[in-house]
Amino acid sequence: MAEADDLLARGREVTRKLWGDRAGAPDLPAARLAPEFFGLVTQFCFGMFWSRPGLDTRSRSLCTVAQLAALGKTDELKGHLYGALNLGITREELVEVLMQTACYAGVPAAVTALNAAADVLAPPK
Amino acid sequence: MAEADDLLARGREVTRKLWGDRAGAPDLPAARLAPEFFGLVTQFCFGMFWSRPGLDTRSRSLCTVAQLAALGKTDELKGHLYGALNLGITREELVEVLMQTACYAGVPAAVTALNAAADVLAPPK
Amino acid sequence: MAEADDLLARGREVTRKLWGDRAGAPDLPAARLAPEFFGLVTQFCFGMFWSRPGLDTRSRSLCTVAQLAALGKTDELKGHLYGALNLGITREELVEVLMQTACYAGVPAAVTALNAAADVLAPPK
Amino acid sequence: MAEADDLLARGREVTRKLWGDRAGAPDLPAARLAPEFFGLVTQFCFGMFWSRPGLDTRSRSLCTVAQLAALGKTDELKGHLYGALNLGITREELVEVLMQTACYAGVPAAVTALNAAADVLAPPK
Amino acid sequence: MAEADDLLARGREVTRKLWGDRAGAPDLPAARLAPEFFGLVTQFCFGMFWSRPGLDTRSRSLCTVAQLAALGKTDELKGHLYGALNLGITREELVEVLMQTACYAGVPAAVTALNAAADVLAPPK
Amino acid sequence: MAEADDLLARGREVTRKLWGDRAGAPDLPAARLAPEFFGLVTQFCFGMFWSRPGLDTRSRSLCTVAQLAALGKTDELKGHLYGALNLGITREELVEVLMQTACYAGVPAAVTALNAAADVLAPPK
Repeated sequence: MAEADDLLARGREVTRKLWGDRAGAPDLPAARLAPEFFGLVTQFCFGMFWSRPGLDTRSRSLCTVAQLAALGKTDELKGHLYGALNLGITREELVEVLMQTACYAGVPAAVTALNAAADVLAPPK
Repeated sequence: MAEADDLLARGREVTRKLWGDRAGAPDLPAARLAPEFFGLVTQFCFGMFWSRPGLDTRSRSLCTVAQLAALGKTDELKGHLYGALNLGITREELVEVLMQTACYAGVPAAVTALNAAADVLAPPK
Repeated sequence: MAEADDLLARGREVTRKLWGDRAGAPDLPAARLAPEFFGLVTQFCFGMFWSRPGLDTRSRSLCTVAQLAALGKTDELKGHLYGALNLGITREELVEVLMQTACYAGVPAAVTALNAAADVLAPPK
Repeated sequence: MAEADDLLARGREVTRKLWGDRAGAPDLPAARLAPEFFGLVTQFCFGMFWSRPGLDTRSRSLCTVAQLAALGKTDELKGHLYGALNLGITREELVEVLMQTACYAGVPAAVTALNAAADVLAPPK
Repeated sequence: MAEADDLLARGREVTRKLWGDRAGAPDLPAARLAPEFFGLVTQFCFGMFWSRPGLDTRSRSLCTVAQLAALGKTDELKGHLYGALNLGITREELVEVLMQTACYAGVPAAVTALNAAADVLAPPK
Repeated sequence: MAEADDLLARGREVTRKLWGDRAGAPDLPAARLAPEFFGLVTQFCFGMFWSRPGLDTRSRSLCTVAQLAALGKTDELKGHLYGALNLGITREELVEVLMQTACYAGVPAAVTALNAAADVLAPPK
């Protein structure tokens, strides 16, 4: 059983792959209200789960995007779309994930997700 | 714009990869009550979305498993876990997807999904 | 502002239309655990909302069936399908409502609803 | 089994009843990001389901409004409230559907829906 | 069985504890669209349930905050956070309720709730 | 930042209060399929969140029961109802929490929760 310092270190290794230097200090009202919260999230989401060996990071990222779209969590979805692009997942692949959400969570969930994704996934000019 | 016959044919090509000969005629009360329903589902879920080129079938399968776990749809989850195994996704990978659901949909959603998956993903004796 | 006796009387007028003599005393574990609960439900769901003039009972019934299917509440769905049949809504109409749920809440929600409905809506032999 | 051209044609017949000339080309970020998506939606939601004979369009519209309110999908709700008015459903009837949502999806869902509906359903001056 | 006048009176007794003089006439589009709705809510949420003897008001308030956070209903959440502060529940306690939501409804639900709460729970300057 | 051994130890201190000797080794298919999962849950749900000082355990238990009822997670709900009884929360208080769920998550959510609770909360004979 690893130490919590290890959990944080392991978690940060993942978040750096996803968001580079912007990782770990999100500029959100939630971070001002509950300053310890995102450190805990780094430990348990990324240090305990994402860093486990049995599944590659690319698949974990796609599954996370898919779940956030299905659940209608648009703010976290945007963050994880940026992360997915940083991992080398393409715009086209991500649009397909969001479109397919219509089958399992309904058309409105897919529309909401595609609307939220439009800025993040717009082709660079 | 393809013909609907094509939609059905294209959809069946996908469902055969996922479920072989068991595809398309699920033995469910829903199929007795609404005999046309699953034909429509084959056309639109599999013929319109899954068969699109921009994302590989393996990724579509993982994303579907992830969404069904997040949404608590255990019956469809079991079906898609079988499909994922047929595509060559491993037991270990699928367990990781279900465990990670705890982060985004909460621990009870992950427990429900793991309970539902236990029979499907139990190692063969 | 009507009296609560009136609320109960007005509510019972609605539930009798839906379920006849079976109304108001559901044989559920919930009713044993919380004996006052269903009386309150009769007052506020049926006495305060369903009995309002601006929408006909048939439309209220269809909308309720649609919402319960979308929300995955299969036990209440069965009860309201019986109620809908008693109001003269046909089996075919109800199957259409449940099938269309696939568009707005996803295919798994529709499958769950159709499975739950199969006994209630099976044609009499 | 009809052709997909037919699905699109049949779907457009429905969407024209709901939204007239504004149908089919929603001015949404989602439509810019995924230009083929709304064509697919027209085919499967409206061409495959809404255009089926067993249930009248008015009832399909009411059920859709009810489901979108229950699921908290406010953008699509506004669109379908416009559609419902175009079909001749009255403001009063729609407000009743939204109020009754409190019974089945909780008071906050009803408040969210009524807030979203206020502009669409405000009486013309 | 009490009269509805009693329900309203009993409900108002509760809402006054939560929101003082601001109770009962929320300045929301929903209140303009459906002027009778919030009176009904006062009767059944507060007059029928919150005013029952078996559970103290402080616990009812905490449970409501917890449920609204889990369900992602941010507008009602803000209102009930104000109410909780008026009952003497502390900022720190409420932040803990929202953080713990991560365990049962997932991290995105907790982030959404904490973001919504930041203004209401910010320490006075 | 504490060590993970501490997280586990701290988590177990909480789960022992809730479930005594039955804590930590739930006899569930999920535990056979994913043997490490519940250890991780003990660390992060109970070691990271429940064991924080800012909110008493009784309030954390009530909020958890309320959230599980609102989310329809009946298996975990039963477990936490047992835990709540072990903390000294009364049957009557728990029934009130579940009944009040009708206001915020709808009547069907409350009925589902009360049905699930009936065995756990039945008065001892």
